[in-house]
Amino acid sequence: MNGTDPAGLSARAIAEAVREGRLPAREVAEACLARAAAEAVDARGPRGLIAGVPVGVKDIVETHDLPNECGSPIHAGRMTGRDAACVAALRAEGGVVLGKTATTEFAAYTPTRTRNPHDPRHTPGGSSSGSAAAVADFQVPLAIGTQTAGSVIRPASFCGVVGFKPTFGIIDVAGVQPFAASLDTVGVFARDVSDAALFVAAMVGWPELAETAPAPPRRVRVVRAPRWQAATEEAEAALDRVAATFANEGIDVDEADLPEGFDEFVDVQDRLQVYEGHRALRWEREVLPDMLSEGLRDHFARAEAMSFDEYLDLRARQVAWRRHIDDRLADGELWLTLSAPGEAPEGLASTGDPVFCRAWTFLHLPCLGLPAGKGPKGLPLGVQLVGRRFGDGAVVAAASWFETRLG
Amino acid sequence: MNGTDPAGLSARAIAEAVREGRLPAREVAEACLARAAAEAVDARGPRGLIAGVPVGVKDIVETHDLPNECGSPIHAGRMTGRDAACVAALRAEGGVVLGKTATTEFAAYTPTRTRNPHDPRHTPGGSSSGSAAAVADFQVPLAIGTQTAGSVIRPASFCGVVGFKPTFGIIDVAGVQPFAASLDTVGVFARDVSDAALFVAAMVGWPELAETAPAPPRRVRVVRAPRWQAATEEAEAALDRVAATFANEGIDVDEADLPEGFDEFVDVQDRLQVYEGHRALRWEREVLPDMLSEGLRDHFARAEAMSFDEYLDLRARQVAWRRHIDDRLADGELWLTLSAPGEAPEGLASTGDPVFCRAWTFLHLPCLGLPAGKGPKGLPLGVQLVGRRFGDGAVVAAASWFETRLG
Repeated sequence: MNGTDPAGLSARAIAEAVREGRLPAREVAEACLARAAAEAVDARGPRGLIAGVPVGVKDIVETHDLPNECGSPIHAGRMTGRDAACVAALRAEGGVVLGKTATTEFAAYTPTRTRNPHDPRHTPGGSSSGSAAAVADFQVPLAIGTQTAGSVIRPASFCGVVGFKPTFGIIDVAGVQPFAASLDTVGVFARDVSDAALFVAAMVGWPELAETAPAPPRRVRVVRAPRWQAATEEAEAALDRVAATFANEGIDVDEADLPEGFDEFVDVQDRLQVYEGHRALRWEREVLPDMLSEGLRDHFARAEAMSFDEYLDLRARQVAWRRHIDDRLADGELWLTLSAPGEAPEGLASTGDPVFCRAWTFLHLPCLGLPAGKGPKGLPLGVQLVGRRFGDGAVVAAASWFETRLG
Repeated sequence: MNGTDPAGLSARAIAEAVREGRLPAREVAEACLARAAAEAVDARGPRGLIAGVPVGVKDIVETHDLPNECGSPIHAGRMTGRDAACVAALRAEGGVVLGKTATTEFAAYTPTRTRNPHDPRHTPGGSSSGSAAAVADFQVPLAIGTQTAGSVIRPASFCGVVGFKPTFGIIDVAGVQPFAASLDTVGVFARDVSDAALFVAAMVGWPELAETAPAPPRRVRVVRAPRWQAATEEAEAALDRVAATFANEGIDVDEADLPEGFDEFVDVQDRLQVYEGHRALRWEREVLPDMLSEGLRDHFARAEAMSFDEYLDLRARQVAWRRHIDDRLADGELWLTLSAPGEAPEGLASTGDPVFCRAWTFLHLPCLGLPAGKGPKGLPLGVQLVGRRFGDGAVVAAASWFETRLG
């Protein structure tokens, strides 16, 4: 241990030095975290796709050494004693879990106290609020999130970072608190596409994804749905700029030819999510209902009014819609749309509207959210590229290619 | 408390009475369990679809009051402090968890010590070994199992009870230890179809299923695949008898017209299961590999030799096959096939071959296993009815109808 390394000092010595202004508290924290990281990496040798890279883990994803509180007082301090599969995998590739990141209550609706690093008066989005904010604020270069409606792509947009929600099931959900089993998808936050791909590659044992060469898509179709009236003017202008960038490079860009009834996704996804969520949290509802937020209980009351046959109908519609869109989204084609209606809303009462993400989560399609300039309040805007099921590599290639065109 | 109720006696008094032969130990156990059940039911009032019904819970399904050991020394004594969603649901409907039932290691391959109630020299099947045996042995009228390859239908067949694996996702998996996320399906054991339907109805909040009226299927197609050479003569004879029973009642019965390549399911399902299992158990593999059985490590070695692209290809084939079979299995049609190649194999070294179940789990189709007489060793044989996705009600109706025809 280096004699001048603050991590080697006694607590007394640290406190004295900090009080006397000789040592910034920040340097102490950095040295200690660096040491923890170094220990972890040293134990295995400095190898792995993300050797020594600090990582934030959404607090619905189990780590053996930290509580998994799920943003709920019901699970305050709850240790599970083991790592989620994706956490064990990232550690095996040399990643260092720096801490858990704040989540909305059970990754659903009730906001955290996390603020937007671009302007603390605004929400960072949710439900992966802490993961998006931590990456945007340079606290970690990588963080794990999950998306059931729009919980990766939306906060990535609001915080001006890259969000990547791969195809449903690409990252294993073992050890991740479920909300809606037919929708829950593990995803990641990073500051560029290359890092996002690297992180997914590390967690799923897919080294080829980390080596994806930038490549233009054959065809881009712009989706202005569902419920497009939610989009702000500045967001739509950002989308048009991105589409123009593709077109100016000679890509075949056009408006998407959407199927009849495309707007219904918003409602169907929402009902599926609420119904499955109220099933998954049955124990919490039975045993400690008063410790659920009023908002969540209100959502669950909607589910309680639904019959199981209604639920089966939603599941059958999900299957049918997946087939339909799988057929419509041609090989080599990507869909381009907004990640969110606009800049992050002011205040922390809501994490914003997932309206432009619901369809893609419902359809199990890979989505990659990219920063796309700023709005009138100086806050980030974002667009997302949507690919075919299991076409994650093509989405990453196109997003990387687009990133290089932006300089 | 009744003065003669053994549950009210002191330990000293019980031991004395048992030693002197005045009180069978069995009566004491019964009285205490009855008391526990009564307490649970009394606390809520004697209501619910399964009020007071004792239930066995496979030991990969969390209960707040018992360890969840997953058949592995790695998780010996591991309390999770909460109920799986399906357990919370069954308790809410008045069910009483009498205990956990033995599972193979992580519901995979390594057998338990559980024996077949029909002949203790034979396996009860697996991985839901304890659940099948406990229902067959009248220890509980209902038990929860899970199926990733053939872990409900096969042990039900070997133990001569009804097994019901509903459509994938009908029973929520929150709180169930995952093995292969794209295959794992929660199911049930009971001694008749009506009870099996009642139990599923209670766990998913689908009272209509419990009231399903027996109804003949419009059409039955007999499936003699994949790898039909595994079937014993006596098992095939049992299948033919069941098919004849349907035909004799005027049902349109014929051989199924199977697609090209149907045999490939066995291999594809197996590789998908092994690959996803090795991902889901990443933490266990990293931290305590020596506590995994050699057999499981051998299976995982196969997965480690696979690339992620191979896995993606398996997933894509699963999607394509599901579409194909969804189209081929007409409305009102059920497929009839064997639950297992024959009687339960002798010995406890293996839980038998899931070969005739793999395809249906892979395809997410509802399967209901029915006893179908006995083989030359006096052990049960079984057949299964397979329905369309989300067509669970039709499967239950047809199975109930068939049961009435058997008397």
